[in-house]
Amino acid sequence: MAEIDFWYSIGSTYSYLTVMRLPEVALATGTTFRWRPFDVRHIMIEQNNVPFRDKPVKAAYMWRDIERRAKTYGLAPKVPAPYPLAELVLANQVAIVGAEEGWVEDYTRATYRRWFEAGQPAGEDPNLSDSLKEIGQDPDRVLREAKSDRIVGALAKATEEAQTLGIFGAPSFAVGREIFWGDDRLDDAIAWAQRGATPE
Amino acid sequence: MAEIDFWYSIGSTYSYLTVMRLPEVALATGTTFRWRPFDVRHIMIEQNNVPFRDKPVKAAYMWRDIERRAKTYGLAPKVPAPYPLAELVLANQVAIVGAEEGWVEDYTRATYRRWFEAGQPAGEDPNLSDSLKEIGQDPDRVLREAKSDRIVGALAKATEEAQTLGIFGAPSFAVGREIFWGDDRLDDAIAWAQRGATPE
Repeated sequence: MAEIDFWYSIGSTYSYLTVMRLPEVALATGTTFRWRPFDVRHIMIEQNNVPFRDKPVKAAYMWRDIERRAKTYGLAPKVPAPYPLAELVLANQVAIVGAEEGWVEDYTRATYRRWFEAGQPAGEDPNLSDSLKEIGQDPDRVLREAKSDRIVGALAKATEEAQTLGIFGAPSFAVGREIFWGDDRLDDAIAWAQRGATPE
Repeated sequence: MAEIDFWYSIGSTYSYLTVMRLPEVALATGTTFRWRPFDVRHIMIEQNNVPFRDKPVKAAYMWRDIERRAKTYGLAPKVPAPYPLAELVLANQVAIVGAEEGWVEDYTRATYRRWFEAGQPAGEDPNLSDSLKEIGQDPDRVLREAKSDRIVGALAKATEEAQTLGIFGAPSFAVGREIFWGDDRLDDAIAWAQRGATPE
């Protein structure tokens, strides 16, 4: 069974494409993905790698590209979605709680769907509470936990681990120490996990 | 017959992948590509979009990614190749002459091969003269022409045309006003040119 670490941040636009299709891809390819939320913005700021905020032409292209690729995957997002997210950090602290408790995938998909399909920013209400309720979690309990020193530290530690691997953007796929960046490198990552090579 | 404008700059690293495989892709898919050299650096500087120069982690990833994808295409570049190119502008002025005279593809492939496979920067000697001689062109004549006001103006005009289309990086593929950025969007561009949609 091929195993891949899926590193993402709720707040990354292209991660929408991966988040929404990953369960089907996992099934179709016999791949196990470990969902690893981290704070990509922290790394990007440190590396002076700001992809869209001050680049309107590139940002406009990004939304069009996501719209086209989403259609390929049978998705119909409303673009542009609200961006950047004011509450990126909290959104991912909640994901860290979810990773510990086994509901990270369900939460991430629920919050991305509201962000990209209903135009509600992730990491804040109504998206945050509604997404947690939808997957059977109590928002008050989860938010208390998500804001605890332990979880704040766990997200920082995950971010440091990503950075040590050479990850600088999201989504990224790690197969051992081999890194693949971008939803469009998912096939390459799967091929690498299965045979240690990119497709011929 | 599907028609696509292939916008590239000699100096773009990912354009190596496209330049080396495009003739085969054209044949296999029945697509006509119009090779359109432009000055991507001019646009990037104007848009504060510097992808690699001050970003060592992202740059290291880029070389590894190119190395892996090149293998997929049956290519074996020596990476990292010299980067950035000091003589990007001249390299592309020569390409503009080639576009007018019908040898732009041969020149671009010859100079990329020397740049990526022999470690000789494009746009300067020995790469420049040897590439021109290899394809049967007289370096002295071509360089005089390439440095003429007319060709300097033609490259600037092509760059302006690219910018008007919303192009901000290289390689880019234009199907009418629909833009696809990156070697990894070539399949999407071909599908769009053939059926006005991305692959299902």
